[in-house]
Amino acid sequence: MSLGEFELIQRYFSGASSDASVALGIGDDCAVLSIPEGMQLAVSIDTLVQGTHFLEGTSADLLASRLFGSALSDLAAMGASPAWLTLALTLPEADEDWLQLFSHRLSELCAEYSVSLVGGDTTKGPLTLSAQVHGFVPNGQRLTRSGAHVGDLICVSGSLGDSRGGLEGLLKGFENDTYAEELLQRFYAPIPRIELGKTLLDKASSCIDISDGLLSDLAHILKASGQLGARLQLEALPLSKALVSTFGEENARQWALTGGEDFELCFTLAPEYLPLLNQLQTIVTVVGSITPTAKVELYLRGEKCEIQGSGYNHFHSNN
Amino acid sequence: MSLGEFELIQRYFSGASSDASVALGIGDDCAVLSIPEGMQLAVSIDTLVQGTHFLEGTSADLLASRLFGSALSDLAAMGASPAWLTLALTLPEADEDWLQLFSHRLSELCAEYSVSLVGGDTTKGPLTLSAQVHGFVPNGQRLTRSGAHVGDLICVSGSLGDSRGGLEGLLKGFENDTYAEELLQRFYAPIPRIELGKTLLDKASSCIDISDGLLSDLAHILKASGQLGARLQLEALPLSKALVSTFGEENARQWALTGGEDFELCFTLAPEYLPLLNQLQTIVTVVGSITPTAKVELYLRGEKCEIQGSGYNHFHSNN
Repeated sequence: MSLGEFELIQRYFSGASSDASVALGIGDDCAVLSIPEGMQLAVSIDTLVQGTHFLEGTSADLLASRLFGSALSDLAAMGASPAWLTLALTLPEADEDWLQLFSHRLSELCAEYSVSLVGGDTTKGPLTLSAQVHGFVPNGQRLTRSGAHVGDLICVSGSLGDSRGGLEGLLKGFENDTYAEELLQRFYAPIPRIELGKTLLDKASSCIDISDGLLSDLAHILKASGQLGARLQLEALPLSKALVSTFGEENARQWALTGGEDFELCFTLAPEYLPLLNQLQTIVTVVGSITPTAKVELYLRGEKCEIQGSGYNHFHSNN
Repeated sequence: MSLGEFELIQRYFSGASSDASVALGIGDDCAVLSIPEGMQLAVSIDTLVQGTHFLEGTSADLLASRLFGSALSDLAAMGASPAWLTLALTLPEADEDWLQLFSHRLSELCAEYSVSLVGGDTTKGPLTLSAQVHGFVPNGQRLTRSGAHVGDLICVSGSLGDSRGGLEGLLKGFENDTYAEELLQRFYAPIPRIELGKTLLDKASSCIDISDGLLSDLAHILKASGQLGARLQLEALPLSKALVSTFGEENARQWALTGGEDFELCFTLAPEYLPLLNQLQTIVTVVGSITPTAKVELYLRGEKCEIQGSGYNHFHSNN
């Protein structure tokens, strides 16, 4: 085996980029890139570590979709259009099968989301995958965490808690495996809500992607928007049939609040935009509203509930 | 200990950015950045892994300088002006002392090179440090590996082999430690040749930074420039007094050719630019010239020599 450095990926990455914004792609000391006029660049870097974010032996194609989806989700949360990807791969060995599987899936996803792989580094060591995503936002128009106002509706896309359900099944087995594949898919192949983010660009007052659980990520919005609060209606939380059927309503609701890595968007919207929600391609649910005092109140069928736990954090727990 | 995610770094990173190109820095889902008019973006990502690139127990400030210097060196090789940095840090634990030491040194280097830290990710796992650097090049003016012509002079900055000398001493001990500190410094704190790169922007026909050894990196230029060759004068190789005194001339010359991670620039220059070399701030040495046939010939005091080994590669050896 004599593959060296980033040739490892370059070799398996199908097709050269025809992206006009890429003046110089993989193969020199740097990539050289052009930003379209009137646009700003949005960037985010994310890492997946074996043993922390995935189990040993996880298939390389699943790692590719997990890395890609979670990284692009940060662009979605800013309302950015994806453009470029760089990779830093630390691998125990130059395993051609692994690389082929990884690169092939990554290549498919790049094509689907119009992303060009423009550079990277491969090094030897414990399996660790970092991706930096780059996207464009019109000058001054990004979504941020900091613009929520009292009275705004709190909305979430898709269904929540499924990724945690997939992880539970993975770690402890599925008692009922009717929906196992669907839940595992939500864990391994998060869908970045790119189109939704772009649609919200001049409409939502704040936005974040749900990577640490709704309560934890909503708290970032509340803090960044000036120590605001929220009232959440727990019966409104969008729970999938797959999750409720497999783990019961109580678990499903708990994981919707605190389960990490759903990579759905949580955003706030002035009430006059309510009609917009029916015109979206993505299913969006109103789950509560912004309140003036810095606390989160939970209501279930009219009764006030206690918060059980909060979103996780890599240095707080073993998730 | 309850530090979470990238707050780990943000907390220790002194001072907010006053960089006008940073519309939105650390703390949201993405950083939002502006590229000056008439400029393109140059990006490169690099990883250092414990056990592969440095020994367990290496001080965090040395890791910061090694990561920063080696990453910025890629910008130097393109003639780019450094602008922004993102970090992906995988750490076994949230060690406040480590983070303080790392961030403080990194902060000093960012200030010295006018770089803004704009984002990052911290995760739990085996110590692995990735950095993506971003710089600006005037539209269409970057240095690349591919422009060398027959008859061009082959030039290198600084002295070569010192980093390998530092590593040898680190692994096997220094028999004579007069220059130990100097050589270790070359290993731990590579100097990115930013000003030299910028000066060469419209003059050098090709450029690369020496990360895998002169022979190996020069080979990239020769290949990218259309299967050209080179003739090197070994007595011309710039060897430091520190390296020769400590390890002897033979080792010094071998490591100048094949020792990795000097992060000096190797570039080619049409002979008419020869007078330029005397006007540079950085010491530059002419070590050979470009030839038409795809082979590298080594001469020592007029006699032809054999190549002993070549630059290393992370998947080829244990460096």
